[in-house]
Amino acid sequence: MTHTIGRHVLADLYECDPGRLDDVALIERALRAAAAAAGATVVGAAFHRFVPQGASGVLLVAESHLSVHTWPEHSFAAADLFTCSPTLDADAALSVLREMLACQRLATRDIHRGDALVRYTAPR
Amino acid sequence: MTHTIGRHVLADLYECDPGRLDDVALIERALRAAAAAAGATVVGAAFHRFVPQGASGVLLVAESHLSVHTWPEHSFAAADLFTCSPTLDADAALSVLREMLACQRLATRDIHRGDALVRYTAPR
Repeated sequence: MTHTIGRHVLADLYECDPGRLDDVALIERALRAAAAAAGATVVGAAFHRFVPQGASGVLLVAESHLSVHTWPEHSFAAADLFTCSPTLDADAALSVLREMLACQRLATRDIHRGDALVRYTAPR
Repeated sequence: MTHTIGRHVLADLYECDPGRLDDVALIERALRAAAAAAGATVVGAAFHRFVPQGASGVLLVAESHLSVHTWPEHSFAAADLFTCSPTLDADAALSVLREMLACQRLATRDIHRGDALVRYTAPR
């Protein structure tokens, strides 16, 4: 079976709870819970809360990264899950994020990265 | 003018110098130089080197994030630039990354995030 080297899931989360989106400690708990649900191994992290509102967070994982940026004023969050592992469970991670941020709608794009590496035939 | 809330540029970098892709200190310098070239303000960072090879890095910036994951064994790097600022210069950032990682080819996807926020009409 031929794999691409990376799978990148872009998840736009709409109609989320604005209070949760503005709580950077909750954002960190949600990202770490999402990583655990996906089966990812965390190797680095960075979080930031903006003034007057909004938060950003990213986890570097052995399988690549999970990130989220929030706009409480629009009840909107943009999450990414980039993985080079075919066994990482992206759906589980996104379900956790959606539930913990209390989002009503989720729109995803699933993108193959490095798809011009035609000779690539096995997961990393 | 109507904006989307976020612009996400996915850049696949091919035929890069494998030695540079395996040098996490160089990866950090390259990401920070790319952020500076784009006009971004760094607010957080995380980097990791893998065994036996490869590196990952991410900068949280006030305008969202820059990330890169490298596969020296494939001379390949996957970079992302996510911005909520219409004035951030993504092309300048990618030019810096391409040059510092000595990549021969660059393939980009330019994706609008939060495009279902139809009432959104101004940059953050």
